[in-house]
Amino acid sequence: MTRALPLTAYRMGIDTHEEPIVFMRKDCAICRAEGYTANTRLQISAGQRTLIATLNTVSETILPQGYIGFSDSAWEFLGLDEHSVVHVHHAPPVPSLSALRKKIYGHRLNTLEISSIIGDIGQRRYSDIEVASFLTACAGGRLDAAETTALTTAMINNGNRLHWPEYTRVFDKHCIGGLPGNRTTPIVVAIVSAAGLVIPKTSSRAITSPAGTADTMEVLTNVDLPLAQLRNVITRTGACLAAGGEVGLSPTDDLLIRIERALDLDSEGQLVASVLSKKMAAGSTHILIDMPVGPTAKLRTPQQAADLESLFHAVAGNLGVEVRCVQTDGSQAVGWGIGPAEEARDVLSVLHNEQHAPADLKERALFLAAQLLCMADETSDAQAYRNARDLLESGEALQQFLNICEAQGGLREIPTASHHIELRSTWDGHLRGMDNRRLAHLAKVAGAPSSPEAGLRLQVKVGDSIRAGQALATLLAQTPGELAYAREYYHQNRDLFDVAPANTPAITEGNRDGDRDSNR
Amino acid sequence: MTRALPLTAYRMGIDTHEEPIVFMRKDCAICRAEGYTANTRLQISAGQRTLIATLNTVSETILPQGYIGFSDSAWEFLGLDEHSVVHVHHAPPVPSLSALRKKIYGHRLNTLEISSIIGDIGQRRYSDIEVASFLTACAGGRLDAAETTALTTAMINNGNRLHWPEYTRVFDKHCIGGLPGNRTTPIVVAIVSAAGLVIPKTSSRAITSPAGTADTMEVLTNVDLPLAQLRNVITRTGACLAAGGEVGLSPTDDLLIRIERALDLDSEGQLVASVLSKKMAAGSTHILIDMPVGPTAKLRTPQQAADLESLFHAVAGNLGVEVRCVQTDGSQAVGWGIGPAEEARDVLSVLHNEQHAPADLKERALFLAAQLLCMADETSDAQAYRNARDLLESGEALQQFLNICEAQGGLREIPTASHHIELRSTWDGHLRGMDNRRLAHLAKVAGAPSSPEAGLRLQVKVGDSIRAGQALATLLAQTPGELAYAREYYHQNRDLFDVAPANTPAITEGNRDGDRDSNR
Repeated sequence: MTRALPLTAYRMGIDTHEEPIVFMRKDCAICRAEGYTANTRLQISAGQRTLIATLNTVSETILPQGYIGFSDSAWEFLGLDEHSVVHVHHAPPVPSLSALRKKIYGHRLNTLEISSIIGDIGQRRYSDIEVASFLTACAGGRLDAAETTALTTAMINNGNRLHWPEYTRVFDKHCIGGLPGNRTTPIVVAIVSAAGLVIPKTSSRAITSPAGTADTMEVLTNVDLPLAQLRNVITRTGACLAAGGEVGLSPTDDLLIRIERALDLDSEGQLVASVLSKKMAAGSTHILIDMPVGPTAKLRTPQQAADLESLFHAVAGNLGVEVRCVQTDGSQAVGWGIGPAEEARDVLSVLHNEQHAPADLKERALFLAAQLLCMADETSDAQAYRNARDLLESGEALQQFLNICEAQGGLREIPTASHHIELRSTWDGHLRGMDNRRLAHLAKVAGAPSSPEAGLRLQVKVGDSIRAGQALATLLAQTPGELAYAREYYHQNRDLFDVAPANTPAITEGNRDGDRDSNR
Repeated sequence: MTRALPLTAYRMGIDTHEEPIVFMRKDCAICRAEGYTANTRLQISAGQRTLIATLNTVSETILPQGYIGFSDSAWEFLGLDEHSVVHVHHAPPVPSLSALRKKIYGHRLNTLEISSIIGDIGQRRYSDIEVASFLTACAGGRLDAAETTALTTAMINNGNRLHWPEYTRVFDKHCIGGLPGNRTTPIVVAIVSAAGLVIPKTSSRAITSPAGTADTMEVLTNVDLPLAQLRNVITRTGACLAAGGEVGLSPTDDLLIRIERALDLDSEGQLVASVLSKKMAAGSTHILIDMPVGPTAKLRTPQQAADLESLFHAVAGNLGVEVRCVQTDGSQAVGWGIGPAEEARDVLSVLHNEQHAPADLKERALFLAAQLLCMADETSDAQAYRNARDLLESGEALQQFLNICEAQGGLREIPTASHHIELRSTWDGHLRGMDNRRLAHLAKVAGAPSSPEAGLRLQVKVGDSIRAGQALATLLAQTPGELAYAREYYHQNRDLFDVAPANTPAITEGNRDGDRDSNR
């Protein structure tokens, strides 16, 4: 049959991000015989590997006859080279799509159905719009505890899993997020592993925030550790601070997160499954969840946090792991820095017990470390807090942090952004609040996290008195274009710093913009 | 600012279907300065037109320095030529996405929110995954009557609208679909316009079926009529049988339908808004809705049809148009032909009152034509039916149909498929049923509707006695590849013809496949 005729693989040099795209000539005999047109879903086989991809048809000028073009991600997924022979077929019906349809129409899915959906997504059988449809159908509380349990299990089973037979208890922590600068993890891991807890921390890169723990740690040391090196680091130090990607833990989660990010969607069931699947695949048995609550944090009300906490407990109970959730203050950004490099600066300054280290970051880290120590021992909260503080202030936590960085490949120097401007207040008053979401967005517009140097350095905290012309924050970027774009965003969103005027607002034309461009 | 630096437009010769894609070099100064990477959403301005597109980054081999590449649809939307100068910016936040998020989380949307979503989709500001998310969030009965009314109004307002001041009543009909071969529209339009009703029928091409009315009519005459010609046809004949696309009625609906088709999703609220927006934009005041109900039709139960009917009445009431819904038998395919050319054959044979014309197609068309005549006059159902039958059997309907085709550009000859095989029964018995969905899928796999000649010609009806080896249907395709692929699908789905065995099934190896390839 014509459709089995082989074609030769051709790398187009087109990066379509994760979505696999193949390119065939409009005048290609196979396209004509098979009725393939733009957007047809095709099954591509090369050697032992197969992939479902979306077809783009092309004119004869950019692809030689007898070849089939591949986007970068499709090329890599199939492990192709320039001599690879490829077979093309109509994509077979994806069986789990009927389960997806059932969910869209509001019905409960059973374990088998959820497992088939996650299996098909993991095998790249879903198009991006199908993944978007699945995420949307599950959002808004439409996954119950049983479905979330099934989703978590399916995601764990679709990847590698770490086992730690030498340890009876393995700890982990996670923050729900939404609070820029809330980079407690490196400090908490240093403290509790100095106290003897085993905490093999793998973190994700930023999803919708200007920095994830992996982005921040990457400023300070190597975080991409193959499994053997990861085990070695943990054996030597009882901990690690690595990126999760290399180890292949719950890789389907990464495929879902890519679309969640594009849709700016982070639903309850997906969130619990994402967190627990990553942690359980990493072999954790005791997991602390930090839930910042505030009007512009991800969790806006204590009730929302309590609902999420119930779902966490129900699913963790079903899966036999211990989870402790703590609600924390989510009213404003934590520390001074926002963005990978600036957050790394804050982390080091707390570990070094520097005088100007951000007190709020230190207190949050001590509180969370104490909660983990409590989970480990039957000690009181107060005693655990004193233990944590002693480990930090004695320098033992710093030493442990340096040991971890050393084991991962050595401590790096924190880079500095090439361009910056000061964002100044236009009137006297006091800082009544700040908008976490728009602060995070500002740092992202400036280039964080893909430019690790980009972001913000805050110079005020809520409650502070402000003078007209005083700098509220420094905006940092790696390129003039990104700086200009971020400044434009700030000018349209100046109220993200809520400065309550002392008397009447005093705005003069001269300082209306309140910032000046400069190099640094 | 660097990001305002212009680039020259370059047509890549890549057909990405409707999704607009732009291509920039990875090493391009603008990408680096602005932090643009694969999947970044960009706003592209050229002259007075702007478009939001998704970025693919490319290597230096396929795009010259200083150029920005465009997919075919992006190129056409912006009306570019090879000298066009293009400005690139970060895509501004799309304001209606917050309304979308509200819907995802299960809240009602008000008229303004729905209108902003439809406006943004119409302006191509949504990516495909955002459209998929919107459709999913609205599916499963999650749009109430008020929201559906707002959606219909927004879709009407986002396109052209026909006005017929010279007519007090303008008629239309629509079939919910799901029944292969149910091509009553050309016959109904011929009958009721012969009776003097004004029925300017514009139809869509197939969404999930092997043929739409526009696909079938295109076999017989020109259906792509610019507005002036459309008006001319209607003035001359009181009717038309055109494709809706040219006239720009509710064009947002076409953007939604493209993603609905890819997701195989057809939700209640979207369906009502789609139908009523197209009809009302065409200026219709009286609309008949044919609702086939059957276990494998789109509407599976009378209750499902009744729910849809309530939504139609509620929305039509809000919008001041008259709607009549009729439930019809949806148990099996209608007529003998499935696919554009084969259905056109059936239509002509009914209009010609041929002896072997499909009786079921004729009866359905007479029933629906009578319903429209009833809506127009206070006459009884029985009298209206007699009037319709007289118009058909006297040849007046045929003459009217030929007049319409003549006015649209002349009658065409129906083409014949190049390849066919017979699908035979393997045992004696009687035909207990047929699966409409899989029959439709089989015709699509054979190439319908993009190959108008492809599809099926049925040779039996439910209730017929069957002998072993008797042909149940002829499978038609335009290429050997498509025929082979369709045959493979049939072999995996032989029970789509449910032949109840007379005694015990008599399967012999010799006729197991029951079909032979041949040319025709």
